[in-house]
This record gives sequence, C-alpha cells and structure tokens, in this order.
Amino acid sequence: MSAQARNVDAHTRALVEPSTAVILASTSDPREDLARERSKASFDARELENLLAGGPKSASLRRRIVDAMTSNEVFSKRGKYFDERDELYVRTLKMYLALPSAVAAMNEKEPIAVARIMRELIDEPGGLDLHLGMFIPTIQGQGDEEQRKYWIPKCVKLECIGTYAQTELGHGTYLRGLETTATYDESKEEFVIHSPTLTSTKWWPGGLGKTSTHAVVMARLFTKGVDHGVHPFVVQIRNNQNHEPLPGCTIGDIGNKMGYNAVDNGFLRFDHVRVPRRAMLMGHSRVETDGTYVPPPVAKVSYGTMVFIRSDIVMNAALFMKKAVTIAIRYNLVRRQSNADKATGMERQVIDYQHSQRTLFPILAMAFAFHCTSDYMRRMYFEFQKVSREKQDFSALPELHATSSGLKAYCSWMTKDAIEACRLTCGGHGYMNLAGFGTTLASYAPNVTYEGDNNVLCLQTARYLLKMYRNTIKGETPPDVIGYLKGTSSRSSLALGSTMRDENAILDAYAHRAWRMVTEASKVTGDMSPDDAMRVHMVQWIRAAKAHCAFVVMYNFVIAYEETRPRVSATTLLVLHRLVCLHGLCGMDDTMGDFLEDGYIDGDQATEIRAEIFRLLAEIRPDAAALVDSFGLSDYFLNSALGAKDGDVYRRLYEQVQDAPFNKRHTPPGYELLQPKLRRGTFGVSRL
Amino acid sequence: MSAQARNVDAHTRALVEPSTAVILASTSDPREDLARERSKASFDARELENLLAGGPKSASLRRRIVDAMTSNEVFSKRGKYFDERDELYVRTLKMYLALPSAVAAMNEKEPIAVARIMRELIDEPGGLDLHLGMFIPTIQGQGDEEQRKYWIPKCVKLECIGTYAQTELGHGTYLRGLETTATYDESKEEFVIHSPTLTSTKWWPGGLGKTSTHAVVMARLFTKGVDHGVHPFVVQIRNNQNHEPLPGCTIGDIGNKMGYNAVDNGFLRFDHVRVPRRAMLMGHSRVETDGTYVPPPVAKVSYGTMVFIRSDIVMNAALFMKKAVTIAIRYNLVRRQSNADKATGMERQVIDYQHSQRTLFPILAMAFAFHCTSDYMRRMYFEFQKVSREKQDFSALPELHATSSGLKAYCSWMTKDAIEACRLTCGGHGYMNLAGFGTTLASYAPNVTYEGDNNVLCLQTARYLLKMYRNTIKGETPPDVIGYLKGTSSRSSLALGSTMRDENAILDAYAHRAWRMVTEASKVTGDMSPDDAMRVHMVQWIRAAKAHCAFVVMYNFVIAYEETRPRVSATTLLVLHRLVCLHGLCGMDDTMGDFLEDGYIDGDQATEIRAEIFRLLAEIRPDAAALVDSFGLSDYFLNSALGAKDGDVYRRLYEQVQDAPFNKRHTPPGYELLQPKLRRGTFGVSRL
Repeated sequence: MSAQARNVDAHTRALVEPSTAVILASTSDPREDLARERSKASFDARELENLLAGGPKSASLRRRIVDAMTSNEVFSKRGKYFDERDELYVRTLKMYLALPSAVAAMNEKEPIAVARIMRELIDEPGGLDLHLGMFIPTIQGQGDEEQRKYWIPKCVKLECIGTYAQTELGHGTYLRGLETTATYDESKEEFVIHSPTLTSTKWWPGGLGKTSTHAVVMARLFTKGVDHGVHPFVVQIRNNQNHEPLPGCTIGDIGNKMGYNAVDNGFLRFDHVRVPRRAMLMGHSRVETDGTYVPPPVAKVSYGTMVFIRSDIVMNAALFMKKAVTIAIRYNLVRRQSNADKATGMERQVIDYQHSQRTLFPILAMAFAFHCTSDYMRRMYFEFQKVSREKQDFSALPELHATSSGLKAYCSWMTKDAIEACRLTCGGHGYMNLAGFGTTLASYAPNVTYEGDNNVLCLQTARYLLKMYRNTIKGETPPDVIGYLKGTSSRSSLALGSTMRDENAILDAYAHRAWRMVTEASKVTGDMSPDDAMRVHMVQWIRAAKAHCAFVVMYNFVIAYEETRPRVSATTLLVLHRLVCLHGLCGMDDTMGDFLEDGYIDGDQATEIRAEIFRLLAEIRPDAAALVDSFGLSDYFLNSALGAKDGDVYRRLYEQVQDAPFNKRHTPPGYELLQPKLRRGTFGVSRL
Repeated sequence: MSAQARNVDAHTRALVEPSTAVILASTSDPREDLARERSKASFDARELENLLAGGPKSASLRRRIVDAMTSNEVFSKRGKYFDERDELYVRTLKMYLALPSAVAAMNEKEPIAVARIMRELIDEPGGLDLHLGMFIPTIQGQGDEEQRKYWIPKCVKLECIGTYAQTELGHGTYLRGLETTATYDESKEEFVIHSPTLTSTKWWPGGLGKTSTHAVVMARLFTKGVDHGVHPFVVQIRNNQNHEPLPGCTIGDIGNKMGYNAVDNGFLRFDHVRVPRRAMLMGHSRVETDGTYVPPPVAKVSYGTMVFIRSDIVMNAALFMKKAVTIAIRYNLVRRQSNADKATGMERQVIDYQHSQRTLFPILAMAFAFHCTSDYMRRMYFEFQKVSREKQDFSALPELHATSSGLKAYCSWMTKDAIEACRLTCGGHGYMNLAGFGTTLASYAPNVTYEGDNNVLCLQTARYLLKMYRNTIKGETPPDVIGYLKGTSSRSSLALGSTMRDENAILDAYAHRAWRMVTEASKVTGDMSPDDAMRVHMVQWIRAAKAHCAFVVMYNFVIAYEETRPRVSATTLLVLHRLVCLHGLCGMDDTMGDFLEDGYIDGDQATEIRAEIFRLLAEIRPDAAALVDSFGLSDYFLNSALGAKDGDVYRRLYEQVQDAPFNKRHTPPGYELLQPKLRRGTFGVSRL
C-alpha cells in the first residue's frame, strides 16, 4: 500500500474525490470560484496570450512542449518539493540528460528554441547548467577555431563536463583582485596553475563540486615575469575513468545554499598543476611557445556576452514575476476569509481586500512592463550584434552596457521583492513548499548578486549618466532614451480627473525625476573623477541610476502599448491601458517623496494619484483571472498547489502532502528517544 | 580518515592552520582587521553590553550558559546547515530532551530563565516546541484546577506530547470560520469531534505531524443543537504504546516548508471521534453532564496571553535584527573588494562603501530601538497583569491590545526585511547556509503571518486609533502615547545645522505624520462603522497604523535614551545619541514623501536630513565593530562562518564545507548516469 493510501481513510477519500466532495452550504467550491472569475473578464485572454507569446504559433508550440513533457515520466515534478538534496540533484540531472531525445522527438524546425523552452519549464538549474550555459559558450567565444573544433564535440557528447571557475573565496565582484596564477614555463611549454593563498581558492562555480571533469579557470597570466591580467585556461580536474580529482587538484562541494541545491557549487584549489600551452583559450590573446604574449586586437570584446546574459536576466525577471503573481492571484481569488457576506452567506474572497489588490495588481502590471522591457533589450542587443559584426561598429556599446547593467539590477531587485510580496498575500499556506514561492524565491534570489552585484551595476549606469550629463552640458545631444538630460518641465501636467490616466504625462514624471537626480548628483560631484564620484556620493548615484531605470521601464511599456494599439481589439487595449497607468502611478505612489521634494507635484496631486490608483484597481479586479491566464503559464511550470489553473487548491494540497517523506512511517525519526517516556502514560480523561 | 581529512591536501592544510597561514603581502588577515576595528572604538563595548543585558550579572549568566552549552556535545551545531530534514529533526529533538538536565547542571536560582536562554541559543524550533509553548500553557490557562492537576505532571514527564490544533486547511486568520465540530451527546456524556469537510482539516500545528500523542483541538461546540462557538478540547490522537493514530484520526506531516523544518507541522482529520465530557477545557466555560452550556464569566479573558506572545515577537524582532546585523557588519569589516588603496596597497573594506553603511547602520540603530520597544511592551504587559489580577482592572486592555498588535506587525516586517538586507550586503557568500542568513530568514519569516497576519493586526491598531480620534474630537483626553491626536505643529522645527540632531524634534515629525494619517483616514471614513472603514479604506488605515507604530518605536527609543542618561558614561551616551538620531532621520528619509506631502518639511530640509545622515554614518563607522560586540551574541548563537567574533571568515568557510554530505564521495549521486559517456573521453590538449 502506498504511503498515500495508508494515510487517507475512506471518509477522507470521499472528500478529496472531486465527484463526491462533501461541501457545506457555506463553503464555496474553489473551482467554481475560478471558473466564474474567468467568465467575468472584459477581454479575450487568448488574444492577449498570443500577443505576449509573439503570435499564436509560438503559444501553441509552447503548449505542445508542455504536453510532451507532462506525458514523459522523467520530467515529472511529483514529490519534488520534498526531495532531499541528492534526490533533487539526480532528478534534475535525469531531466537534463533526457533533453536531447525529448527535443528530437518534438521534431520542430528550431530545436534550440525548443530546448530553451524545455529548460525554462524544468525551472531548476542542475549540475550540467554551467556546462551548457558557460563552459561551452566560453570555449565558443574565447577559444580559437582549432580549440573549438577540439572541445565542442566532446562537450556535446558529454565526454567531458565543464564549469566556469572565476570567483574565488576572497574575490568576487572585483575581477582584478583574482589571485590564481597561470605561470608560463617555456622550458616545458606548459602553464603552472596555482592557488597561492587560501583566499585564491576557486569558490562557487556550479557543477564544480561533484559533476565536472573540466573547468575554464580564470587565472592571472604570467609570462617572463610579467603579469598580463586574468585569462581563461581549460583545465582537466577529474579523472575521466573514475572521477577522482587529478593530482594537485583539491575539489569539493560548498554545501547547501538557500536555494539552487540541485547545483553542486564547488571549490577548487591548484597545487602547481601543469597544463599544456594550448590549454589557454587563444581566440583573443595568445602566448607563443617562447612565452611571447600577444594581446587581443580589441579590448573588452567580450562585453557583448555580458549584455546578452543580462538581457536574459531581465527576461527571466518578467517570467518569475508572472509566475509568482499567477499563483498569488489565483489563490487570492479562491481563498475566502472574513465574516460571512450577507448576500451570499459566504466568506469574502481575499482578493476583495483592498490591500491584496494594492499589492498584487501593481505586480501584475509590472510583469507586463518587464515583458516589454526585455523585448526592447533583446532588440537592442541583436541590433548591436548586427552592426558590430557587419560594420565593426561598437559605438552603441556604452549605452547598451549602461542600460543592460541598470536594468538587470532594477528588474532583479523588483522581482525578488515581488515574489516575496506575492507569497505574503497567501497567508500561512504561502510558506509551504507546495505553494511554490519558497523555491522560486530561493532560486531567484542570486540574480541580484551574480553577473554583477546590483549596486555595482547601478554605478556602471550612473557613470554613463554622469558622462552623458557632462556631454549634454557641453552642448552634445544625448541619445534618445536619455533625451531628458536636456531638461524637463518643472511641474507635472497630471491633474485632477481623467487626465491622471495620461501615460505620457506619467512618463514625463519619471523623466523629470531621473533628470533631477542625475542633475543633483552631478552638481555635488562637481569635477570629481567618475571613480571618486561613485565612491564619495555612492548612495546618491545609485538612487539616480534606479530613477533612470524606472524611467526606461515605463518608457518601454508606453512604447509597447503604442505599438500594440493597431494589433489588438479595443477591449484588450483598454485593459492594457489600465495596466500602463497603474504601473506608472503606483511607482510614483511608492516613492512619492521623489516627486514632491522639488514641487514637481503637490499634495493635492499626490492625493489624486492615490485615488486614481484605487479606481484602477477596481476596474482591473474583474479581469484578474483572465490577465494571469494570458501569461500562458502551465501548471507544469508553476508547480504550485495554490496556483493551478483549475483552482482546486485544498484537494491538491491534501493529496500532495501525503507524499511527504515523514509520512512513510507513523513514528517520527528518533522515536526511540521518546517511546520509553510516552509508554508510561495512562489516560482516562473520563474519570476527571 | 574523515571526509574532511580526505579533502584537504597538505598544501591546503598549511594554509588553513592559522599559525602557518601563507598570506600574500597584498592580502589582509581578517582577524587583524577585526582586532584593529575593535581598538578604534570611542566607547566601552562591555559597558553597553551590560546595559543591554540588564546588568553585568545577566550578561555574565548568559556567557556561562553559552560555555556550558558549547562544552556539551548534544548541543553542537556542527554540520547543522547540511542536515537533511530527519537529521535536523532528531538533532533538535535531542537538544530539547537534554534541556532539563542541562538546566539543572547550571544550578542557578532561576531555572526557568536559564531554560528560556538555552532555547534562545538553540535557535531552532523543534517537534516539542508547541508542547512547551502552547499545549502546556493552554491547559494551564484554560483548564480548571482538576484538569491542570491531571495533565501538567504528565506533560512534564513527557508521558504525553501535545500540540495546539486551531488553524484549518481553509481557515486561518478568521477564527470564527473554523469548521471542526464538537457535538455533545448527553446520552453517553461524550463529545463527538468531527471534520465535516476537506477544508475543516486541521493544518499547520507544529509537532502534530509525527511527534504528538495529544492535541488541544479548537472546535465549534454544539450542545442541544446550539452552536456556542469555538472551544478547546484535549484529544488523544495517537496510541501511547506504538504511536499509531487512534481510530477515526487521520494524521500526517505537511512536508517541507521554506524553513522551520525541524518542526513536523501536521494535518489532522476526525471521523466522529468520541471523547469524554471532561476533555473540554473548563477553566472558563463549561458543559454540564446534561448538556447545559455555562459561558465564561468575562469574555475575551484570554487576550492577555496574546498580548504576551506578541510582546515576545517584538523582543525576538530585536534579537534577530541584532543577529543579522552582527554577522553582516563583521563580514563587511573584513571583506575587501576594490582597486588597491594607494596608501595601504590593499583592497578597500566593504564597510567603507557608503551603500554598506547606509544599509547596515540604520539596521544597527533599529535593533537598539526595538530592544527599547520590547522592554516597554513587557513593562506594559506586567503592569496590566498586576492591576487586572489584583484589582480586576481591565481598562488598559484596549491600548495594550492595539499597541501590541501594531508593534508585532511593524517590528516583524522590519526585521524580516532587515535580515534580507543584511544578507545582500554580504555578496555571494551571504547565500551559503554557512553564512547563517538563509535559515535565519526562513525561520523568522512566519512571524509576519502567525499570531495574527500583520495586515489584519494593523487594522486592529487602526480601529483603536479611529475610536480614540473620534473620542478626542468629542473632547476626551487620549492616553499619553497618542497625545498627538490632539494635534501637532504644522511645520517641523528640524533646521539646517546641528539642530538636525534634536531627537525630540525628530519625534515630533513622527507624531505629526501619525496625526496626519489618522486624521485623513478618519475624514474619508466619515461616520462609517469601524468594520466598513477598515474594508473600504483598508490601505489608508494600514498606512496610518504603521505611521503610529513608527512613532511608538521612536518614542520608546527617545525615552530609553533619556532614562539611560544618568547611568552611562558620556562616551557611550554620545554613541547612543547618534543611534537615536540615525534611526529617526533614516526612517524619515525612507518615507520622505510622508513628511513633504503637507509641507511639514520642505525640500531644503529633506536635503539636509540626508546630509546629516551621511555625517552620522561617518561618525558611527569607527564604532561599528564595538557596537555589534555590545549585543553580546555568542558565536554559538550566531552559527555563522561570516559573523564569528574572531573575523576568521575564510578559514572557517573552507573548513566547514568539508563536512558537506556531497563531499563524502568523489562522485556525484547518480554518477552511473554520467560515467559511460565520460569514460569515452580522451584528452590530449598538448597536441592541439
């Protein structure tokens, strides 16, 4: 008998079988609640879903992929939330290993796109993640042709599994502080890779702990006694036959983290490990056999990849915001909690508490805004890639770098906070793993730290803003997006009544704030160097960068709304307009001081903004269910007992907890410690 | 050979032995960094520690308890961050079982206080938590004398282990929605306990999943067909000999949560389970043998306990804020990250980034503020307990209830966010379990949900504020704390220059904001009933309640500062004054719009507030190490590789990861899936 069957008595089984569910008159059926909510929508959710997915074909492909995965046992997520770490590791490894055949079975024209969607749906980074996401791309991007030909086929056949070893125990953000050395020995035509200090221990690389046989090691290159800075070396670290660390390599796992535990993040130390000269990836710079160092032709040529990875983070921000708010809105629609309503005799749906709406609907709107922003970033990136390849034109790089840095920071911060805010609208149940928030937050959290700590990235954006501001003062014309640097109106045109819903007037407010903050930070900066400015006035410059990013997000949302206008029905457009305005006005309300401080708006306008927000919330309320449906997120992806499409929350929770490992036995672990005491007890309450 | 020894080669061992550590000239020794930081302090940390602990005797008792626990293997936390769930459960269970003898061995006059400190130091709720914290207190508080005499000795001897089963699958916050029934059958003088629906399943009680043999079940009492509302019943749910669920009881664990996994939160269903009449706890209301219901003499008599639990949450808020900020400040003091400083040749300490200070020092100050607030709440509670017992005077209850509700919400929100903010100042390493933030946050997080959802609690405070405001308008004099309801000055006296550090002027600003928000919310409320007001203007009333709580915290901080004045040295007092001002001014800066909106401060004052904050940060900077030392938190309690007192971060991290379970073998779990592919690989890079 299964654990589940053992724990569910007949009485209960009758209840959890939907067909025979015994429901008190005063208790609603959550499935009916959600169905009724869908029927109230003012627009066609499928139309909006197709728009967001990039057309009905993409939406349909996505659904076919979900079907294929849910009918393939290897991809099952059943019981995943109760996995111990080794189980989670193996479960995820199996999924990744099954990807090639699953992609092939789909027989689609674009297998790479299918694989990408499948990984997104698996929604769990695993031991092979860095092999696919960093080791292979680094060899492709930084190796020379011979090196690519040598390594890539082995990588694809998994004859080697690689990781990317950059960060060290004492060195993360500041790349130039890395201590690992690669010293060229021309007598043997070899590099000696060495970890000279404890703090030089490589630390964090995913898949390094146990999975990898190879690593791209970022080490400080010395030839003929000269330090040439950090370069990449492909180093075998484990024996291919039995997986033992090779001589001179000390390797291990760094243990559990807040999340990401299907990944074996690891540490790695080298004790004078020798590798051949050609272990150095020589696509850009080279070391000749005699030790002559040949520098790369164009410095910082690899910035493009970083921009791409950061635009990916913005896209993911939209995705995870959608995920969290889908779960939260669906549960808030079916969860009831209050005095019985006089009309229906039922407790009120939690979504009808003003606070739930004020929390969830702005997140819903922001998910749309981020969706549009990531579209914009990808277009910007591909445009740059085109002109940089075709015309060797790198002039867009500074703006691209500044924008992607700041948006990566802004969007990942907002998303991390949004996931938690969504969870908190779900009461106690939001805290259960089965809700899906915990693991989503835990796995999402590193986004604010990796690929550049968010505050440091904001300073990158700030440097650019400072430079552009100085140029603008000198009479240069700033690029379109930061046209506001030329100056803005000093008073908001947002006024009482319907004109509060003027998306351009709202956008003006964001531009004005960004202008004011950049101007003020520049003024206190005076003619300091950018380095000094970012150090001495760091907090102020981070605020300026955030204000700029908030503007860019709003800017993209407004542009996307304009572009969408001719392509959708009037009903859908009206809904989108509410979201644009809600996003803009709530962003103002949350930081109202920024707009009040210099009198750009006054107290009456602030009051009216809040009143308009409440009107918008009420108008969006009937569309809440349909709006999250339009994200097209499958139950398989969501993996949430609270957020499934049918709304059948309580039956799902009850069924799924039966799988919890503690339920395999009636006794707790360590019962032998309790039993001798408990056995002495005799109870006869009736004699009291 | 231990896993650790296997993984640490000789080269590495030399590095991690402090005595032989090889340190590059450019790399600092973190232990020296922290020692130097301590020596820079402007005040005596021990003096402040004694003050916070309530005198040198208390501080010394605390240290003796830590010594006793660290020298007792059963309390060891070694490897805890890598525990799987059953290991964590058993580890914690053993600690709790060892408490009585450990307390006895201390041979102190107040064993209960010792036990409380020991549980605080264990810092992990376990399977026995609700037995100690809810089952026993409920029987003591709600049972009659005979019932107490019957149950308490059995509880103490662990002949039974109990839990408190209130929340249901579909019912949490709204107590009156509970569905479980207890129907009196006078023919047999028994109650029939029953779970009529799926949503009536008891859900969440700690220790219910596997540990408990008994439960206080909160069920809707029916006698003679009349519903008397929710009452407590002691029900045996598991067999005392073999721990099997008793007939009619379906019980299980609800599986992993974001944290709290040493606790077996469970579910429980009853299928017409019969218990004797005396299973009902009859300290307040009773059912006679013939089914006559005798109601309690004073309604809501149990509010006192709730107030006490909430004041405990405020005290814990201070404790966990101290914990997080101690870890973060210590690591920020030793972590270096930047271009090498010209003077020292070393990278800059991360604490010297303005952003770190602006994040961490206000949290440091807030920990002091919460410390003072929890002192205040406890005094308020004990005063109430005294007059209510001695004089049957319950008149202070409304204020006590309102204050404790709001402060529980405010302090737990702030603390949860502060833990995460502290983690984020620690870069990637903050994400490792060994840092201590992850588990601290995960275990702390439920504080914002349990014992009353924070938003609902804010509305309790708001109701009180609305009522008091209406009374004040009618001419009544409000209680001291909310004297501001009579009106405040309309312009802040905070002005340029040194007067920005006027704690009373800052407090006035908090009072003014609270007054304005209560007034405005009351105005839109008009003569609505409180119920309607809290529903229709919920968001506005929550904001008003938060503003009131921010005022109360600042109020207590200022009062405590005044009271401390004659008791400490001038140097310590000066440091405390900086913290009071920093707390007040940062709270204003973070919500500046609240003070600008009605012109209470203007843009120039806002600018000056920020400037003053930066001056305060710079002045507090040299005292950072000593200030967290003054919290007197032991390494045992902190359990953080980043936050230990000696600053030896990197050696500790490196040593501790050797215990990670994945490091027991060279191969990953599931290696058999990879080996066939990897074995095919041959590598000869030198031939490239």
